[in-house]
Amino acid sequence: MHWTKQELEGIEKIRRLNIINSITGIKPANLIGTISDVGELNLAIFSSIIHLGSSPALIGFVSRPSEEVPRHTLENIQQNGHYTINHVHEFFVEKAHYTSAKFSRKTSEFEECKLTPEFLADFKAPFVKESQIKMGMKFLEAIPININKTVLIIGQIQHLMIPDEVVSEEGYIDLADANSVGISGLNTYYSFKKVGTFPYARTQELPDF
Amino acid sequence: MHWTKQELEGIEKIRRLNIINSITGIKPANLIGTISDVGELNLAIFSSIIHLGSSPALIGFVSRPSEEVPRHTLENIQQNGHYTINHVHEFFVEKAHYTSAKFSRKTSEFEECKLTPEFLADFKAPFVKESQIKMGMKFLEAIPININKTVLIIGQIQHLMIPDEVVSEEGYIDLADANSVGISGLNTYYSFKKVGTFPYARTQELPDF
Repeated sequence: MHWTKQELEGIEKIRRLNIINSITGIKPANLIGTISDVGELNLAIFSSIIHLGSSPALIGFVSRPSEEVPRHTLENIQQNGHYTINHVHEFFVEKAHYTSAKFSRKTSEFEECKLTPEFLADFKAPFVKESQIKMGMKFLEAIPININKTVLIIGQIQHLMIPDEVVSEEGYIDLADANSVGISGLNTYYSFKKVGTFPYARTQELPDF
Repeated sequence: MHWTKQELEGIEKIRRLNIINSITGIKPANLIGTISDVGELNLAIFSSIIHLGSSPALIGFVSRPSEEVPRHTLENIQQNGHYTINHVHEFFVEKAHYTSAKFSRKTSEFEECKLTPEFLADFKAPFVKESQIKMGMKFLEAIPININKTVLIIGQIQHLMIPDEVVSEEGYIDLADANSVGISGLNTYYSFKKVGTFPYARTQELPDF
């Protein structure tokens, strides 16, 4: 199959949406937890979490803007400046998926999807108790992507929780041992199997391919 | 393990780099192909490819700026405005990894890593012949992320190639059938196994969790 830009535009809308949402390959499955000024909890699945830098430890994600439809995650982050990012694991993948339903502002996805909010003292956002790998984030900047009215939300890691047994001495996190999952498109979830670990690549040390 | 921001800063540098590069979860493994004005081919592995929107079909990726160290991919894109994004599959994951070695400007990673450049008429960037899922991209915008001097490169899909047998009627791409791989951190690669496909989530149709 070879589609040009013009041919892509001619594909039936839902099929096209599914294809374009899949073609970058696997995406990480994470839940973002937030709380509003009046104490309403929110939890939403995102596949657009991205590593931006290690020093300082910066993480980004892409959101549609609040003007279009209500974006509770974004609104809460703008209200109190904090949020959590929590890995989705295989055993609660269905619950995580259903946080994407359009619940009202007052409804907590934690409650509806049977996931457990967990708090740290002095940190204004709920973690997901069921998640093993999770971060407490401080909002730093929202960069508008004017071309399609999305926004890149950038935050810095304030807290990081990982079970001892899935992080090696070198700092490698075993995503298969952690049973973390990834997403293709909007609704297909995958688990992982390690196929290779290679050293830092140097031009003088190329293998004999 | 629970690290605060301050404790994270105290972790030995390489270990910290590996941890922070892993904590967002799985990342897609893609090769970006470019060509310079004088015809030098370049191929580089990226784990920061991100879906930005479906209509228009926009894809982003994060790059460090060229001023710091030479960034041949970025320089070539700025020279001629086109690039390709090619999935990494399990059978050439090692070759793909070694494109990250610091080869000189004149050296083609295609040649050094034994991958095959492939051209479309009238499209000014090399595809990876071995890759089954690939896109020809037109550069649209570079958005500076000033906070850590990276840049978000945004492009629009001009060509899209996918084998018939890995894309369903609905437009779902089966990443396990395609043998595409993902990356954790900087050097660990994973294959995928499907664990679930769920319908579009509606509040009135929640499963009995």
